[in-house]
Amino acid sequence: MVDGALRAFQDDPSLHLLLVGPPEAADAILAAVDPAEHARLVRLAVPATHPEDQDQDQAGAGVRAAVRAVAQGQADAAVSAGNTIDIVLSAARILGRWPGVRRFALTAALPTAAGRLVLLDVGSSVDTDPDTLVMHARLGAAYAAVVHEVAEPRVGLLTIGTEKGKGDRLRRALPPLLETAELPAGARYVGLIEGNDVVSGEPADVVVTDGFTGNILLKGLETAYSRLGLPGAGALEVPRAALLLGVGGTVVVCHGAASGPDLAAGIALAAHLHRRAAVAAMVEMIPHNEVSHDG
Amino acid sequence: MVDGALRAFQDDPSLHLLLVGPPEAADAILAAVDPAEHARLVRLAVPATHPEDQDQDQAGAGVRAAVRAVAQGQADAAVSAGNTIDIVLSAARILGRWPGVRRFALTAALPTAAGRLVLLDVGSSVDTDPDTLVMHARLGAAYAAVVHEVAEPRVGLLTIGTEKGKGDRLRRALPPLLETAELPAGARYVGLIEGNDVVSGEPADVVVTDGFTGNILLKGLETAYSRLGLPGAGALEVPRAALLLGVGGTVVVCHGAASGPDLAAGIALAAHLHRRAAVAAMVEMIPHNEVSHDG
Repeated sequence: MVDGALRAFQDDPSLHLLLVGPPEAADAILAAVDPAEHARLVRLAVPATHPEDQDQDQAGAGVRAAVRAVAQGQADAAVSAGNTIDIVLSAARILGRWPGVRRFALTAALPTAAGRLVLLDVGSSVDTDPDTLVMHARLGAAYAAVVHEVAEPRVGLLTIGTEKGKGDRLRRALPPLLETAELPAGARYVGLIEGNDVVSGEPADVVVTDGFTGNILLKGLETAYSRLGLPGAGALEVPRAALLLGVGGTVVVCHGAASGPDLAAGIALAAHLHRRAAVAAMVEMIPHNEVSHDG
Repeated sequence: MVDGALRAFQDDPSLHLLLVGPPEAADAILAAVDPAEHARLVRLAVPATHPEDQDQDQAGAGVRAAVRAVAQGQADAAVSAGNTIDIVLSAARILGRWPGVRRFALTAALPTAAGRLVLLDVGSSVDTDPDTLVMHARLGAAYAAVVHEVAEPRVGLLTIGTEKGKGDRLRRALPPLLETAELPAGARYVGLIEGNDVVSGEPADVVVTDGFTGNILLKGLETAYSRLGLPGAGALEVPRAALLLGVGGTVVVCHGAASGPDLAAGIALAAHLHRRAAVAAMVEMIPHNEVSHDG
């Protein structure tokens, strides 16, 4: 965390960091930075017992404090390598959801020989349902349009074969829903795709799947690429960090085992998305007449 | 198919091929082979209407004929790049299951820097259940012991995080069952692993997952490795073909989009497994006092 914060801070002279979490980490960061630059660093103490946290375990207190700082305007974005479940629960309770969104989508970008590919969900919504995946198709299309500047993004559904009867119950229910779904940014559903297509990037700009499958595929491919090289021949820099889409603020999630460079890339992604006002642009794109089935 | 059969036939002078399926494919293979070698090639006509197939669609007729040839002793193994569902249904009906096995496991070997890793299921059992994954842990351990000659294989459960509460409903139910399960060949359950561990191969020799997740991860990694190189630095040759485990015979499944070399590797794998009497050795290892829950 200390290494990642220092890298991000030094790479971006206009970045301000609000340091939330273990005091010893904040001490180490402040000690490593030229005192002339301390104006760009603010330490935020995590209250031992915030009134809203009394029923919560303390492990997520830092995550909740960071998300609350976004809600209160002290920070423009939150970046965390904490437990995804803590981040999702805090974001839902403190920042709220976009209209029509019931379940968030943790959204990653992967390099391919054909360009950047949006993969969602990568770990937020497991045990999911057809309506959630249809909404995630919209969120992914908005991400490709706003962040990757893809015109009319192609959206594919990840499954295990394109023959009749293939796929699990969830996947077999989805094609008719995706074919008729209203997608933003002129996006269109291009059909079923497979694991190999996520590497080639040829048939789709956006790949929709459940958070269990997406997380396992992402971690497998990221590790393969970090050992063997990137399929885009190194031309693409893609952060090992994911945006939590559908939440009312900019929240970036890094791996629990993130390295310093990973965390720095996550902070840089958060800053980039905030400066482009990406979340507001995406909210604007999502059809607002969707009815959430659980009210 | 023609290219794959010819490659396998020429690479292995003691291989006999029973050619099942489209007559034009058999014609092309026979035409390409020196007539002096024709004794190693036998053409099997697929009956237009086998008495047992009257209620079946004709698409799977070739698959059923190949599996029936194994059941009747005309062939020692069947290799197919047909629809996995057709292969699984034919194998279940014609060759039967090992004692205690309700659902088969399509079992692949992946190269890692640490050696060969067994991944199952890779596409046969989707929408699965805890009992099936426990049995698949046994099947995978037997495969690692017999085919990869691993002593006391380490078995891991693929999930999306090792923190408390992570994973989907199916994965959260499994650790207590796997910890107490009787595993063959001195195998032991080593706990939860993640997508990156399938690339490194460090924590486990056998990785258990559902057929949906396994298929997507396998196709993603195979494609990444074929474009970028193997994590074992090319030292390991691992066929792009999977053994259908739990069926009473040697049945190897190739991708629907298998290349000639893929199909040749599948045929060579089938021949290798038959010559080692691998299926019989694995059946012998599986505890026979298991009660199948559906009788």
